[in-house]
Amino acid sequence: MTALALDAAGVAAYIAEVWPGASDRYSAETIESLTATSARMRWRVDESVLRPGGTVSGPTMFQLADSVAYLLVLGLLGRAALAVTSHASIDFLRRPSSAELVAEARLLKLGRTQIVMAVDIFTVDLGAEPDPARPVASASLTYSRALVT
Amino acid sequence: MTALALDAAGVAAYIAEVWPGASDRYSAETIESLTATSARMRWRVDESVLRPGGTVSGPTMFQLADSVAYLLVLGLLGRAALAVTSHASIDFLRRPSSAELVAEARLLKLGRTQIVMAVDIFTVDLGAEPDPARPVASASLTYSRALVT
Amino acid sequence: MTALALDAAGVAAYIAEVWPGASDRYSAETIESLTATSARMRWRVDESVLRPGGTVSGPTMFQLADSVAYLLVLGLLGRAALAVTSHASIDFLRRPSSAELVAEARLLKLGRTQIVMAVDIFTVDLGAEPDPARPVASASLTYSRALVT
Amino acid sequence: MTALALDAAGVAAYIAEVWPGASDRYSAETIESLTATSARMRWRVDESVLRPGGTVSGPTMFQLADSVAYLLVLGLLGRAALAVTSHASIDFLRRPSSAELVAEARLLKLGRTQIVMAVDIFTVDLGAEPDPARPVASASLTYSRALVT
Repeated sequence: MTALALDAAGVAAYIAEVWPGASDRYSAETIESLTATSARMRWRVDESVLRPGGTVSGPTMFQLADSVAYLLVLGLLGRAALAVTSHASIDFLRRPSSAELVAEARLLKLGRTQIVMAVDIFTVDLGAEPDPARPVASASLTYSRALVT
Repeated sequence: MTALALDAAGVAAYIAEVWPGASDRYSAETIESLTATSARMRWRVDESVLRPGGTVSGPTMFQLADSVAYLLVLGLLGRAALAVTSHASIDFLRRPSSAELVAEARLLKLGRTQIVMAVDIFTVDLGAEPDPARPVASASLTYSRALVT
Repeated sequence: MTALALDAAGVAAYIAEVWPGASDRYSAETIESLTATSARMRWRVDESVLRPGGTVSGPTMFQLADSVAYLLVLGLLGRAALAVTSHASIDFLRRPSSAELVAEARLLKLGRTQIVMAVDIFTVDLGAEPDPARPVASASLTYSRALVT
Repeated sequence: MTALALDAAGVAAYIAEVWPGASDRYSAETIESLTATSARMRWRVDESVLRPGGTVSGPTMFQLADSVAYLLVLGLLGRAALAVTSHASIDFLRRPSSAELVAEARLLKLGRTQIVMAVDIFTVDLGAEPDPARPVASASLTYSRALVT
């Protein structure tokens, strides 16, 4: 079994150091769990990301999927800020309508050059648990351990 | 041949009306062309969207791909703010390193319920033309004409 | 909760009637379970589908993913032979090396026009249960309820 | 500019040697062109691959997309039978109805570990040229140069 190279607090500290502009997305409030095979984040929905009709925009959900995947990558690889997303596929399934978004990443493969993860995103009331049968989006993300050159 | 329901200025005016927070992304500066089968946008890269290492973040490129696709959807469907992305796949191919990003959307299918588009993203110097053989990202996006319910 | 329109035997009988060439893929041997939110199939690996190096070819795994998704679609919609795949994304994660492939489909969304499913594929010894943490492939498939026209 | 490691005849000879079961798919009849940035194949539609309603099955189109991508990979890398598909996304856009399928692969990136290609598939009458504006399917495929382990 792979051990974590960084725990949740270690990831938050690392992001604060190398990428301060993202530190509000990787904090004690947003990171709910991090293990060697999974990660979970919770984001408060801010009105600024709403599209007409009151729904959360697709790019916001993509950013959340990418962020929870990067959280898991940093947990697995440690101080690897230069690992980059090489592929992402996302299905938008339902309109997110509630106060918070919860994203769960599950490790599919930790390879020598690629890390593949599945991410489900849920919409929930403040502090509530998601219904696993009703994701609002479902994604697959691949991170490349080397720089894309 | 399908005619445009809205031209570039019409899309910019519509966005300013229904989604003012996005109006800087759909303006006379950012929209370079809009036809019944294609759309093109150009974004200045802002330091705030850079990841560690100086590269543009994946979510920023996703947002650009989604924006140029939505531009084409609005051109085709007219005042259809509630059309939503139902699927997106994106390959990140190279590190974007230059001052501007150019995105080109090409219509693959205009169906009764779904609109499918291919999008290539390029990194260029200020005002320069992209090299079609070297996109920094390549995506496929599907918009649903009805609300996701 | 949605009830099944056809059970496993009903799907097998329907395929035998309308698509006899596919009836060996939808039989009492290959269909292991079918509920209103999931489906599971098991295929014996035939040497004819092996690539150089002894691995199962990508198109064979794609066909299995598409078949278990279609099984779930027929279970949900009934005699709907004309429902078609509109999108598929698949990650090939590990080399399948064993005697059988097991595929599990999970319903993500049953919409008015689109049905979205997640599929994981596993490689197992004869009759064995898969290790859920080590899929050989992971896919997302969308079926369109109407004909693609 | 990258030179071809194998030309069309070289690929056909190599496939006949290492993967005889696939040699009818990689022949002087099916390979129409192969350059360092593109490949093109043409397949006669066989009744055995038709689904109910007379349309070509999704897995058949996937196999064609994967085959033309592998043709380009072999042209670029030479005798690299063990290069494998690591990811594929495919949109099925229209019902293929004609006598032949033509598939065109375009190189998006030749990286150290990954090769990314875009593939469009067209349906045409015998020997006819495709209409580039109306593909029946559009795909993105990634090949991994190393074995998936």
